[in-house]
Amino acid sequence: MSSAAPGSSSASGGRRFRTPDASRRSERSRRAILDASMELVGEVGYNRLTIEAVAARAGVGKQTIYRWWPSKAAVLLEAFTTVVTDDEYEAGIPDTGDLEADLKQVLRATVDEFTDAAFEAPYRALAVAGAADAELSEQFLERLMAPGMEVYSRRLRSAQEAGQIAEDVDIGLAVEMLLGPFQQRWLQRTGNLTHEFTDALVDLALRGLAPR
Amino acid sequence: MSSAAPGSSSASGGRRFRTPDASRRSERSRRAILDASMELVGEVGYNRLTIEAVAARAGVGKQTIYRWWPSKAAVLLEAFTTVVTDDEYEAGIPDTGDLEADLKQVLRATVDEFTDAAFEAPYRALAVAGAADAELSEQFLERLMAPGMEVYSRRLRSAQEAGQIAEDVDIGLAVEMLLGPFQQRWLQRTGNLTHEFTDALVDLALRGLAPR
Repeated sequence: MSSAAPGSSSASGGRRFRTPDASRRSERSRRAILDASMELVGEVGYNRLTIEAVAARAGVGKQTIYRWWPSKAAVLLEAFTTVVTDDEYEAGIPDTGDLEADLKQVLRATVDEFTDAAFEAPYRALAVAGAADAELSEQFLERLMAPGMEVYSRRLRSAQEAGQIAEDVDIGLAVEMLLGPFQQRWLQRTGNLTHEFTDALVDLALRGLAPR
Repeated sequence: MSSAAPGSSSASGGRRFRTPDASRRSERSRRAILDASMELVGEVGYNRLTIEAVAARAGVGKQTIYRWWPSKAAVLLEAFTTVVTDDEYEAGIPDTGDLEADLKQVLRATVDEFTDAAFEAPYRALAVAGAADAELSEQFLERLMAPGMEVYSRRLRSAQEAGQIAEDVDIGLAVEMLLGPFQQRWLQRTGNLTHEFTDALVDLALRGLAPR
Protein backbone atom coordinates (compact mmCIF):
# COMPACT_ATOMS: atom_id res chain seq x y z
CA MET A 1 0.00 0.00 0.00
CA SER A 2 1.38 3.37 -0.92
CA SER A 3 -0.27 6.68 -0.29
CA ALA A 4 0.89 10.07 -1.45
CA ALA A 5 -1.57 11.99 0.68
CA PRO A 6 -0.16 15.08 2.34
CA GLY A 7 0.36 14.42 5.99
CA SER A 8 1.56 10.88 5.39
CA SER A 9 5.31 10.34 5.51
CA SER A 10 5.62 9.71 1.79
CA ALA A 11 4.36 13.23 1.04
CA SER A 12 6.90 15.05 3.18
CA GLY A 13 9.25 15.52 0.23
CA GLY A 14 6.61 17.46 -1.68
CA ARG A 15 5.50 19.57 1.22
CA ARG A 16 8.85 21.29 1.57
CA PHE A 17 8.09 23.32 -1.54
CA ARG A 18 4.66 24.50 -0.45
CA THR A 19 3.74 27.63 1.39
CA PRO A 20 2.32 27.10 4.88
CA ASP A 21 -1.12 28.16 3.62
CA ALA A 22 -1.07 25.60 0.81
CA SER A 23 -0.08 22.89 3.28
CA ARG A 24 -2.93 23.84 5.58
CA ARG A 25 -5.39 23.76 2.68
CA SER A 26 -4.07 20.36 1.58
CA GLU A 27 -4.37 18.98 5.09
CA ARG A 28 -7.93 20.31 5.32
CA SER A 29 -8.79 18.66 1.99
CA ARG A 30 -7.19 15.40 3.05
CA ARG A 31 -9.17 15.28 6.30
CA ALA A 32 -12.37 16.20 4.46
CA ILE A 33 -11.81 13.37 1.97
CA LEU A 34 -11.08 10.80 4.68
CA ASP A 35 -14.08 11.89 6.75
CA ALA A 36 -16.36 11.87 3.69
CA SER A 37 -15.22 8.37 2.72
CA MET A 38 -16.00 7.06 6.22
CA GLU A 39 -19.43 8.69 6.29
CA LEU A 40 -20.38 7.55 2.79
CA VAL A 41 -19.27 3.94 3.08
CA GLY A 42 -21.40 3.62 6.19
CA GLU A 43 -24.36 5.05 4.28
CA VAL A 44 -24.15 3.17 0.96
CA GLY A 45 -21.78 0.23 1.57
CA TYR A 46 -18.45 -0.46 -0.07
CA ASN A 47 -19.71 -1.65 -3.45
CA ARG A 48 -21.75 1.49 -4.12
CA LEU A 49 -19.14 3.91 -2.79
CA THR A 50 -17.67 6.07 -5.57
CA ILE A 51 -14.76 8.47 -5.69
CA GLU A 52 -17.13 10.98 -7.29
CA ALA A 53 -19.44 10.91 -4.28
CA VAL A 54 -16.52 11.23 -1.86
CA ALA A 55 -15.20 14.23 -3.82
CA ALA A 56 -18.63 15.89 -3.81
CA ARG A 57 -19.11 15.33 -0.06
CA ALA A 58 -15.60 16.57 0.69
CA GLY A 59 -15.93 19.61 -1.57
CA VAL A 60 -12.89 18.77 -3.69
CA GLY A 61 -12.40 17.75 -7.30
CA LYS A 62 -12.13 14.02 -7.91
CA GLN A 63 -8.69 14.54 -9.49
CA THR A 64 -7.50 15.70 -6.07
CA ILE A 65 -8.43 12.28 -4.70
CA TYR A 66 -6.88 10.38 -7.60
CA ARG A 67 -3.67 12.38 -7.19
CA TRP A 68 -3.28 11.14 -3.62
CA TRP A 69 -4.81 7.65 -3.61
CA PRO A 70 -4.94 4.93 -6.28
CA SER A 71 -8.40 3.55 -5.36
CA LYS A 72 -11.36 3.84 -3.05
CA ALA A 73 -9.97 0.98 -1.00
CA ALA A 74 -6.81 2.98 -0.41
CA VAL A 75 -8.79 6.04 0.71
CA LEU A 76 -10.84 4.02 3.15
CA LEU A 77 -7.93 2.07 4.53
CA GLU A 78 -6.09 5.32 5.18
CA ALA A 79 -9.19 6.82 6.79
CA PHE A 80 -9.41 3.88 9.21
CA THR A 81 -5.69 3.68 9.78
CA THR A 82 -5.67 7.37 10.74
CA VAL A 83 -8.53 6.97 13.20
CA VAL A 84 -7.34 3.73 14.71
CA THR A 85 -3.62 4.46 14.79
CA ASP A 86 -4.12 7.71 16.62
CA ASP A 87 -6.52 6.21 19.11
CA GLU A 88 -5.13 2.80 19.80
CA TYR A 89 -2.23 1.22 18.04
CA GLU A 90 0.48 3.63 19.02
CA ALA A 91 -0.63 3.82 22.63
CA GLY A 92 -0.95 0.03 22.79
CA ILE A 93 -2.70 -1.74 25.63
CA PRO A 94 -1.92 -0.30 29.07
CA ASP A 95 0.57 -2.35 31.04
CA THR A 96 -0.16 -1.76 34.70
CA GLY A 97 1.10 -5.23 35.58
CA ASP A 98 -2.51 -6.39 36.06
CA LEU A 99 -3.19 -8.30 32.84
CA GLU A 100 -6.84 -8.99 33.62
CA ALA A 101 -7.62 -5.34 34.35
CA ASP A 102 -5.69 -4.10 31.32
CA LEU A 103 -7.44 -6.47 28.91
CA LYS A 104 -10.86 -5.73 30.37
CA GLN A 105 -10.25 -2.00 30.02
CA VAL A 106 -9.22 -2.14 26.37
CA LEU A 107 -11.97 -4.57 25.39
CA ARG A 108 -14.61 -2.44 27.13
CA ALA A 109 -13.35 0.55 25.13
CA THR A 110 -13.54 -1.58 21.97
CA VAL A 111 -17.14 -2.49 22.78
CA ASP A 112 -17.93 1.22 23.10
CA GLU A 113 -16.30 1.87 19.74
CA PHE A 114 -18.15 -0.97 17.98
CA THR A 115 -21.48 0.13 19.39
CA ASP A 116 -20.93 3.68 18.08
CA ALA A 117 -22.66 3.87 14.69
CA ALA A 118 -20.27 6.52 13.34
CA PHE A 119 -17.44 3.99 13.66
CA GLU A 120 -19.37 0.76 13.28
CA ALA A 121 -21.18 1.38 9.99
CA PRO A 122 -18.11 2.19 7.87
CA TYR A 123 -16.01 -0.47 9.58
CA ARG A 124 -18.69 -3.10 8.89
CA ALA A 125 -18.88 -1.99 5.26
CA LEU A 126 -15.14 -2.50 4.94
CA ALA A 127 -15.19 -5.86 6.77
CA VAL A 128 -18.05 -7.08 4.57
CA ALA A 129 -16.17 -6.04 1.45
CA GLY A 130 -13.06 -7.80 2.76
CA ALA A 131 -14.98 -10.99 3.55
CA ALA A 132 -16.27 -11.00 -0.03
CA ASP A 133 -13.00 -10.09 -1.75
CA ALA A 134 -9.71 -11.84 -0.95
CA GLU A 135 -7.51 -9.08 -2.37
CA LEU A 136 -9.16 -6.30 -0.40
CA SER A 137 -9.12 -8.58 2.62
CA GLU A 138 -5.34 -8.85 2.40
CA GLN A 139 -4.97 -5.06 2.52
CA PHE A 140 -7.53 -4.79 5.30
CA LEU A 141 -5.70 -7.45 7.30
CA GLU A 142 -2.27 -5.96 6.73
CA ARG A 143 -3.21 -2.34 7.40
CA LEU A 144 -5.81 -2.70 10.14
CA MET A 145 -6.40 -6.09 11.66
CA ALA A 146 -2.84 -7.37 11.96
CA PRO A 147 -1.59 -4.19 13.69
CA GLY A 148 -4.62 -4.38 15.99
CA MET A 149 -3.87 -8.00 16.87
CA GLU A 150 -0.18 -7.20 17.34
CA VAL A 151 -1.09 -4.73 20.09
CA TYR A 152 -2.65 -7.62 22.02
CA SER A 153 0.30 -9.89 21.25
CA ARG A 154 2.71 -7.36 22.71
CA ARG A 155 0.72 -7.09 25.94
CA LEU A 156 0.39 -10.89 26.26
CA ARG A 157 4.09 -11.44 25.55
CA SER A 158 4.92 -8.95 28.29
CA ALA A 159 2.66 -10.93 30.66
CA GLN A 160 4.31 -14.17 29.55
CA GLU A 161 7.73 -12.72 30.31
CA ALA A 162 6.41 -11.68 33.72
CA GLY A 163 5.39 -15.29 34.40
CA GLN A 164 1.65 -14.55 34.31
CA ILE A 165 1.07 -16.68 31.20
CA ALA A 166 2.38 -20.22 30.87
CA GLU A 167 5.58 -20.48 28.83
CA ASP A 168 4.15 -23.00 26.37
CA VAL A 169 1.16 -20.83 25.34
CA ASP A 170 1.12 -19.77 21.68
CA ILE A 171 0.53 -16.03 22.04
CA GLY A 172 -0.93 -15.65 18.54
CA LEU A 173 -3.55 -18.28 19.31
CA ALA A 174 -4.30 -16.66 22.67
CA VAL A 175 -5.00 -13.37 20.87
CA GLU A 176 -7.37 -15.20 18.52
CA MET A 177 -9.22 -16.65 21.53
CA LEU A 178 -9.74 -13.14 22.87
CA LEU A 179 -10.65 -11.43 19.62
CA GLY A 180 -12.35 -14.20 17.61
CA PRO A 181 -15.42 -14.40 19.85
CA PHE A 182 -15.68 -10.59 19.82
CA GLN A 183 -15.42 -10.44 16.03
CA GLN A 184 -17.94 -13.25 15.60
CA ARG A 185 -20.51 -11.53 17.84
CA TRP A 186 -19.96 -8.33 15.94
CA LEU A 187 -19.78 -9.45 12.32
CA GLN A 188 -22.14 -12.43 12.48
CA ARG A 189 -24.34 -10.94 15.21
CA THR A 190 -24.27 -14.10 17.33
CA GLY A 191 -24.65 -12.09 20.53
CA ASN A 192 -24.60 -8.62 22.05
CA LEU A 193 -21.37 -6.69 22.47
CA THR A 194 -21.41 -5.65 26.12
CA HIS A 195 -18.87 -5.01 28.86
CA GLU A 196 -20.23 -8.06 30.69
CA PHE A 197 -19.42 -10.21 27.65
CA THR A 198 -15.85 -8.97 27.24
CA ASP A 199 -15.19 -9.18 30.99
CA ALA A 200 -16.37 -12.81 31.03
CA LEU A 201 -14.34 -13.54 27.89
CA VAL A 202 -11.17 -12.21 29.53
CA ASP A 203 -11.85 -14.24 32.69
CA LEU A 204 -12.38 -17.49 30.78
CA ALA A 205 -9.47 -16.95 28.39
CA LEU A 206 -7.05 -16.13 31.21
CA ARG A 207 -7.97 -19.38 33.01
CA GLY A 208 -6.48 -21.24 30.06
CA LEU A 209 -3.38 -19.05 29.80
CA ALA A 210 -2.29 -19.11 33.44
CA PRO A 211 0.77 -21.16 34.39
CA ARG A 212 -0.23 -24.61 35.66
CA MET B 1 -39.11 -18.63 8.44
CA SER B 2 -41.79 -20.66 6.67
CA SER B 3 -41.22 -22.88 3.70
CA ALA B 4 -43.83 -24.75 1.74
CA ALA B 5 -41.33 -26.79 -0.23
CA PRO B 6 -42.24 -30.44 -0.67
CA GLY B 7 -40.16 -32.55 1.61
CA SER B 8 -40.32 -30.03 4.42
CA SER B 9 -42.76 -30.78 7.21
CA SER B 10 -45.09 -27.93 6.34
CA ALA B 11 -45.75 -29.45 2.91
CA SER B 12 -46.80 -32.85 4.17
CA GLY B 13 -50.49 -31.87 4.12
CA GLY B 14 -50.37 -31.16 0.41
CA ARG B 15 -48.43 -34.25 -0.52
CA ARG B 16 -51.12 -36.62 0.61
CA PHE B 17 -53.15 -35.73 -2.46
CA ARG B 18 -50.38 -36.34 -5.00
CA THR B 19 -49.61 -39.45 -6.93
CA PRO B 20 -46.25 -41.13 -6.14
CA ASP B 21 -44.88 -40.03 -9.55
CA ALA B 22 -45.80 -36.39 -8.95
CA SER B 23 -44.14 -36.51 -5.53
CA ARG B 24 -40.96 -37.89 -7.03
CA ARG B 25 -40.97 -35.20 -9.71
CA SER B 26 -41.52 -32.52 -7.07
CA GLU B 27 -38.72 -33.84 -4.93
CA ARG B 28 -36.41 -33.90 -7.96
CA SER B 29 -37.32 -30.27 -8.77
CA ARG B 30 -36.84 -29.23 -5.17
CA ARG B 31 -33.36 -30.77 -5.01
CA ALA B 32 -32.45 -29.25 -8.39
CA ILE B 33 -33.53 -25.80 -7.16
CA LEU B 34 -31.59 -26.10 -3.89
CA ASP B 35 -28.47 -27.37 -5.66
CA ALA B 36 -28.70 -24.64 -8.31
CA SER B 37 -29.06 -21.93 -5.66
CA MET B 38 -25.91 -23.17 -3.86
CA GLU B 39 -23.89 -23.32 -7.07
CA LEU B 40 -25.02 -19.92 -8.30
CA VAL B 41 -24.55 -17.99 -5.08
CA GLY B 42 -20.99 -19.26 -4.95
CA GLU B 43 -20.46 -18.08 -8.51
CA VAL B 44 -22.09 -14.62 -8.47
CA GLY B 45 -22.52 -13.71 -4.78
CA TYR B 46 -25.74 -13.12 -2.90
CA ASN B 47 -26.59 -9.68 -4.25
CA ARG B 48 -26.46 -10.75 -7.88
CA LEU B 49 -28.27 -14.04 -7.34
CA THR B 50 -31.71 -14.06 -8.98
CA ILE B 51 -34.63 -16.45 -8.81
CA GLU B 52 -34.67 -16.39 -12.63
CA ALA B 53 -31.11 -17.71 -12.81
CA VAL B 54 -31.84 -20.41 -10.22
CA ALA B 55 -34.91 -21.49 -12.18
CA ALA B 56 -32.94 -21.64 -15.44
CA ARG B 57 -30.10 -23.65 -13.85
CA ALA B 58 -32.54 -26.02 -12.17
CA GLY B 59 -34.63 -26.44 -15.32
CA VAL B 60 -37.89 -25.32 -13.70
CA GLY B 61 -40.19 -22.35 -14.18
CA LYS B 62 -39.60 -19.48 -11.76
CA GLN B 63 -43.23 -19.76 -10.61
CA THR B 64 -42.32 -23.20 -9.25
CA ILE B 65 -39.77 -21.53 -7.00
CA TYR B 66 -42.10 -18.74 -5.92
CA ARG B 67 -44.78 -21.31 -5.08
CA TRP B 68 -42.48 -22.99 -2.58
CA TRP B 69 -40.30 -20.18 -1.21
CA PRO B 70 -41.01 -16.50 -0.54
CA SER B 71 -37.52 -15.19 -1.41
CA LYS B 72 -34.04 -16.09 -2.56
CA ALA B 73 -32.91 -15.93 1.08
CA ALA B 74 -35.45 -18.62 1.95
CA VAL B 75 -34.25 -20.88 -0.89
CA LEU B 76 -30.63 -20.55 0.17
CA LEU B 77 -31.29 -21.01 3.84
CA GLU B 78 -33.22 -24.18 3.07
CA ALA B 79 -30.43 -25.39 0.78
CA PHE B 80 -27.87 -24.97 3.57
CA THR B 81 -30.16 -26.30 6.26
CA THR B 82 -30.70 -29.44 4.20
CA VAL B 83 -26.98 -30.01 3.63
CA VAL B 84 -25.88 -29.19 7.12
CA THR B 85 -28.73 -30.83 9.01
CA ASP B 86 -28.21 -34.14 7.29
CA ASP B 87 -24.46 -34.11 7.72
CA GLU B 88 -23.99 -32.67 11.16
CA TYR B 89 -26.72 -31.29 13.32
CA GLU B 90 -28.77 -34.41 13.79
CA ALA B 91 -25.79 -36.66 14.42
CA GLY B 92 -24.32 -34.09 16.82
CA ILE B 93 -20.75 -34.28 18.05
CA PRO B 94 -19.58 -37.79 18.93
CA ASP B 95 -19.56 -38.49 22.65
CA THR B 96 -16.92 -41.13 23.25
CA GLY B 97 -16.24 -39.74 26.72
CA ASP B 98 -12.98 -38.20 25.44
CA LEU B 99 -13.92 -34.53 25.03
CA GLU B 100 -10.60 -33.50 23.51
CA ALA B 101 -10.68 -36.23 20.87
CA ASP B 102 -14.33 -35.60 20.04
CA LEU B 103 -13.86 -31.85 19.58
CA LYS B 104 -10.71 -32.31 17.51
CA GLN B 105 -12.47 -34.77 15.26
CA VAL B 106 -15.46 -32.56 14.54
CA LEU B 107 -13.36 -29.41 14.07
CA ARG B 108 -11.02 -31.22 11.68
CA ALA B 109 -14.06 -32.29 9.67
CA THR B 110 -15.26 -28.67 9.72
CA VAL B 111 -11.87 -27.52 8.40
CA ASP B 112 -12.23 -30.01 5.54
CA GLU B 113 -15.70 -28.67 4.80
CA PHE B 114 -14.62 -25.01 4.85
CA THR B 115 -11.65 -25.70 2.58
CA ASP B 116 -13.94 -27.39 0.03
CA ALA B 117 -14.86 -24.71 -2.53
CA ALA B 118 -18.23 -26.31 -3.35
CA PHE B 119 -19.31 -25.65 0.25
CA GLU B 120 -17.18 -22.64 1.06
CA ALA B 121 -18.11 -20.32 -1.80
CA PRO B 122 -21.87 -20.36 -1.27
CA TYR B 123 -21.52 -20.33 2.52
CA ARG B 124 -19.24 -17.30 2.33
CA ALA B 125 -21.69 -15.54 0.02
CA LEU B 126 -24.45 -16.09 2.57
CA ALA B 127 -22.26 -15.04 5.50
CA VAL B 128 -21.19 -11.87 3.68
CA ALA B 129 -24.81 -11.05 2.90
CA GLY B 130 -25.71 -11.67 6.54
CA ALA B 131 -22.88 -9.47 7.81
CA ALA B 132 -24.18 -6.67 5.59
CA ASP B 133 -27.89 -7.10 6.32
CA ALA B 134 -29.24 -7.44 9.87
CA GLU B 135 -32.53 -8.99 8.82
CA LEU B 136 -30.96 -11.71 6.71
CA SER B 137 -28.40 -12.22 9.48
CA GLU B 138 -31.19 -13.00 11.93
CA GLN B 139 -32.53 -15.76 9.65
CA PHE B 140 -29.03 -17.05 8.99
CA LEU B 141 -28.31 -17.15 12.70
CA GLU B 142 -31.59 -18.80 13.63
CA ARG B 143 -31.58 -21.42 10.88
CA LEU B 144 -27.88 -22.25 10.59
CA MET B 145 -25.49 -20.80 13.11
CA ALA B 146 -27.49 -21.19 16.31
CA PRO B 147 -28.27 -24.89 15.64
CA GLY B 148 -24.59 -25.41 14.79
CA MET B 149 -23.49 -23.77 18.04
CA GLU B 150 -26.11 -25.74 19.98
CA VAL B 151 -24.48 -29.00 18.85
CA TYR B 152 -21.27 -27.87 20.59
CA SER B 153 -23.20 -26.70 23.65
CA ARG B 154 -24.79 -30.13 24.03
CA ARG B 155 -21.42 -31.87 23.90
CA LEU B 156 -19.84 -29.42 26.36
CA ARG B 157 -22.78 -29.69 28.77
CA SER B 158 -22.42 -33.45 28.70
CA ALA B 159 -18.71 -33.04 29.57
CA GLN B 160 -19.62 -30.58 32.32
CA GLU B 161 -22.06 -33.11 33.79
CA ALA B 162 -19.28 -35.73 33.62
CA GLY B 163 -17.04 -33.42 35.66
CA GLN B 164 -14.61 -32.74 32.80
CA ILE B 165 -15.51 -29.03 32.63
CA ALA B 166 -15.59 -26.80 35.71
CA GLU B 167 -19.09 -26.22 37.08
CA ASP B 168 -18.85 -22.44 36.87
CA VAL B 169 -17.98 -22.32 33.16
CA ASP B 170 -20.55 -20.56 30.97
CA ILE B 171 -21.03 -23.16 28.24
CA GLY B 172 -22.28 -20.62 25.68
CA LEU B 173 -19.12 -18.57 26.12
CA ALA B 174 -16.96 -21.70 25.90
CA VAL B 175 -18.57 -22.50 22.54
CA GLU B 176 -17.77 -18.97 21.34
CA MET B 177 -14.13 -19.46 22.37
CA LEU B 178 -13.97 -22.59 20.21
CA LEU B 179 -15.86 -21.29 17.20
CA GLY B 180 -15.05 -17.54 17.20
CA PRO B 181 -11.37 -18.00 16.32
CA PHE B 182 -12.36 -20.46 13.58
CA GLN B 183 -14.94 -18.11 12.13
CA GLN B 184 -12.56 -15.15 12.28
CA ARG B 185 -9.83 -17.06 10.41
CA TRP B 186 -12.36 -18.10 7.86
CA LEU B 187 -14.42 -14.97 7.27
CA GLN B 188 -11.72 -12.36 7.86
CA ARG B 189 -8.88 -14.53 6.58
CA THR B 190 -6.66 -13.85 9.61
CA GLY B 191 -4.99 -17.25 9.28
CA ASN B 192 -5.12 -20.63 7.59
CA LEU B 193 -7.76 -23.19 8.47
CA THR B 194 -5.79 -26.34 9.19
CA HIS B 195 -6.08 -29.37 11.43
CA GLU B 196 -3.05 -28.12 13.36
CA PHE B 197 -4.89 -24.87 14.11
CA THR B 198 -8.08 -26.52 15.33
CA ASP B 199 -6.15 -29.09 17.38
CA ALA B 200 -4.20 -26.30 19.10
CA LEU B 201 -7.39 -24.31 19.62
CA VAL B 202 -9.06 -27.27 21.35
CA ASP B 203 -5.99 -27.81 23.55
CA LEU B 204 -5.83 -24.16 24.63
CA ALA B 205 -9.58 -23.80 25.14
CA LEU B 206 -9.80 -26.99 27.21
CA ARG B 207 -7.05 -25.72 29.54
CA GLY B 208 -9.40 -22.92 30.53
CA LEU B 209 -12.44 -25.15 30.90
CA ALA B 210 -10.93 -27.89 33.07
CA PRO B 211 -11.94 -28.08 36.74
CA ARG B 212 -9.36 -26.34 38.90
